[in-house]
Amino acid sequence: MSHLVASIQRAAPALNVVMHGEPGAAHAEVAACWDPPPGALAAMPNLRLIHSIAAGVDNILSDPALPALPLCRVVDPQHARGMSEFVTWGVLHFHRQLDLVMSNQRDARWLRPAQAHPAQCTVGVMGLGEIGSRVALDLQRLGFTVRGWARQPRALPGIEIFEGESGFEAFLADTSILVCLLPLTSETRGILGAATFAQMQPGAKLIHVGRGEHLVVADLAAALESGRLGGAIVDVFPVEPLPADDPLWRAPNLIVTPHMASVASANTIGEQIAHNVQRLLDGEPLGNVVDVARGY
Amino acid sequence: MSHLVASIQRAAPALNVVMHGEPGAAHAEVAACWDPPPGALAAMPNLRLIHSIAAGVDNILSDPALPALPLCRVVDPQHARGMSEFVTWGVLHFHRQLDLVMSNQRDARWLRPAQAHPAQCTVGVMGLGEIGSRVALDLQRLGFTVRGWARQPRALPGIEIFEGESGFEAFLADTSILVCLLPLTSETRGILGAATFAQMQPGAKLIHVGRGEHLVVADLAAALESGRLGGAIVDVFPVEPLPADDPLWRAPNLIVTPHMASVASANTIGEQIAHNVQRLLDGEPLGNVVDVARGY
Ligand SMILES: NC(=O)c1ccc[n+]([C@@H]2O[C@H](COP(=O)([O-])OP(=O)(O)OC[C@H]3O[C@@H](n4cnc5c(N)ncnc54)[C@H](OP(=O)(O)O)[C@@H]3O)[C@@H](O)[C@H]2O)c1
Ligand SMILES: NC(=O)c1ccc[n+]([C@@H]2O[C@H](COP(=O)([O-])OP(=O)(O)OC[C@H]3O[C@@H](n4cnc5c(N)ncnc54)[C@H](OP(=O)(O)O)[C@@H]3O)[C@@H](O)[C@H]2O)c1
Repeated sequence: MSHLVASIQRAAPALNVVMHGEPGAAHAEVAACWDPPPGALAAMPNLRLIHSIAAGVDNILSDPALPALPLCRVVDPQHARGMSEFVTWGVLHFHRQLDLVMSNQRDARWLRPAQAHPAQCTVGVMGLGEIGSRVALDLQRLGFTVRGWARQPRALPGIEIFEGESGFEAFLADTSILVCLLPLTSETRGILGAATFAQMQPGAKLIHVGRGEHLVVADLAAALESGRLGGAIVDVFPVEPLPADDPLWRAPNLIVTPHMASVASANTIGEQIAHNVQRLLDGEPLGNVVDVARGY
Repeated sequence: MSHLVASIQRAAPALNVVMHGEPGAAHAEVAACWDPPPGALAAMPNLRLIHSIAAGVDNILSDPALPALPLCRVVDPQHARGMSEFVTWGVLHFHRQLDLVMSNQRDARWLRPAQAHPAQCTVGVMGLGEIGSRVALDLQRLGFTVRGWARQPRALPGIEIFEGESGFEAFLADTSILVCLLPLTSETRGILGAATFAQMQPGAKLIHVGRGEHLVVADLAAALESGRLGGAIVDVFPVEPLPADDPLWRAPNLIVTPHMASVASANTIGEQIAHNVQRLLDGEPLGNVVDVARGY
C-alpha cells in the first residue's frame, strides 16, 4: 500500500495522505481501501468518502458496519486494455488448440490441429461493464462470434446480448469459450458451478478473470476431471495466493494464473483517488460511484 | 493430396484433374505441387504452368531441372489472418510473461509478473510480404511498437521499416520479440543463427513461422541454453515432422508447434489454382506469379 500513499500524494500534494494506523489516520475524511477490517471504517468519525483502490468493491461491501457514505472505485481504461490482452491470449490459446499442442510437446508428439475460422468459435462474455464490453468488442473485431450477458439491455455492435436470469440458459447453450467478467454480488457468488457447467457444450472452455468467489472450486475440479469442461484458465481464487498444496495447481487442463489479468498502475489509482477527493472538496459530483444497493 | 484433386475439380469441373502417377498425368499442361521429386516436372513435355499449392515455392525452386515456365503460388487472405492469430497469441504469451507463469504453475508458485504497456515491447517482423505486413499491422493496432525488415522500401502506417543487409543490425538491436516471416531463399537460409541472436537484446524472444531452413537448430538450442534467447516458439523445422527423439522437443523455454501457424483451406487452394488455369487458357495475365530469379 505504501506506494499508493506516494502516488496519491504525488497527484495531490496539498492533501495529508497517511497509512491506516499512522497518526492522523483515525480522523481521515477519505478512506482508500481494498479489504478493510470489518468495523474499521465505522470507527473513523470524520469519514466523508470511501474509495476502493481497485475496480471491485465486494470486500468493502461485505463489512456489516459499513458507514452509509459515497463509495467510489477505480475505472482505468488501461485496465480494460490489459484485460483484453489477457483474454485475447486465452481465447486464441483455446481456439488454436495450443493447450493440446503444448501437451503433445511433452510427449514429443507432432499432430497438427484442425484450423477453424474464428467465426465458428462462440465466445460468451458474462458481464458487459467497463471491462467486459471492451473485451467483447475486441474479440468481435478479431472475427470471433461474441455474445454477452448482463442484467440490462444494451447495444454493442455485432454482439448478441442476453439479459438476466431468464436469458442465462440460452446464453450458455452455444458458448464454446465462457469468459467471466462479472462483479461479485450476492447474485453472482458461486455462479461458476456445476449447474452452469452442465448447461454448456461438453468440452467447452472457461476463462475466469472476475472474482474468486464466483467459482465453486470443487465443481471446477470435477468438471475438468470428467471432461465436461475441456479446459480452463483461472486467474482469481477464493483464497489468494492459491496455497502451494492446493490440488488445483495440478488439475487437468487447468492453467492457474496469479491474479494478473489486469493490474491498474499505481499512478492511475493515485490520480483517480486524488481527482475524486478534489471533487468532494469542491462539492462537485463524484466519478465512478458504486450503486451500493445493487452491489457494483 | 487427393482432397486437393477434389477441390480443384470442384472449382473447375471442365478440367481433367489427376494425381501424379495416374494415367494422363504425364501429359498434363499444369502441375500443382509442393515438393516435387527432382526432374519430375522436366519429364512432363506438355507443361505450361507450375503452381505451388502453398505460399512458399522453395521446394520447387530447388529442383535443378526446373523447366523455365511460369510459377505461381497460393495467396490466401485467410492465410494471413490465421498467421496473425498465431503470432498474436505468441506475442501476448511472451509480453504478458505467460511462459514464466506456466512454468511457475509446475512448481505451485504464485508470482504476479509486472505488467507493461505494449508500446514498451518492440516486435520486429522479418519479411513484410502478403503475410508479414498483415501481422505487423495487426500487432501495431494492439499497441505494440512494431518494426519491419524487408529488401525494398515500403510504407506501413505506424511501423518503422529497415531495409536490406545494411539495415539488419539496427533492426535487431532494440527488438524484444523477433518474428520470422521471410521466404526461404539463398540469402535467408540459416539467417536465424548465432550471429543474429548475438545482435539481439539478451533474453529477447523468437517466434519462427517462416521456413525450417531459416533456422540453425544447434544455434537455437545453444542460445536457449545460455539464456541469450529468453524463449522461442518454433513452428517450422528443417526436418518435419520433428523426429520423436529430437532433443529440441525438450529444449528449455521452447514451445514446439507442428507447422500449424496457418493452413490455407483446400477450397481456397483449389479455387486459386482453377482461376489461374482459366487465365492461362484465356491468355490472361496469371495471378500471384513468383519471381524465379529473386526466389520468392
Ligand atoms: N483478474 C483481474 O486482474 C481483474 C482486474 C480488473 C477487474 N477484475 C474484475 O472484473 C470484473 C468486472 O469489472 P468491471 O469494472 O467491468 O465491472 P462493472 O463495470 O461494474 O460491470 C459489471 C457488469 O456485470 C453485469 N452484471 C452484474 N450483476 C449481474 C447479474 N446478476 N447478472 C448478469 N449480469 C450482471 C452488469 O450488468 P448491467 O450492465 O446490466 O448492470 C455489468 O455489465 C470485476 O469482478 C472485477 O473485480 C479482475
Ligand atoms: N508456418 C506456417 O504455417 C506458414 C504458413 C504460411 C506461410 N508461411 C511462410 O511465411 C513466409 C512469408 O510468406 P509470404 O507469402 O508473406 O511471403 P512474400 O509475400 O513472398 O513476402 C516475402 C517478404 O520477405 C522479404 N524478403 C525476402 N528476401 C529478403 C531478404 N533477403 N532480406 C530482407 N527481406 C527479404 C520481402 O521483401 P520485399 O517486400 O522487399 O520483396 C517480402 O517483404 C514464407 O516463408 C512462408 O513459407 C508459413
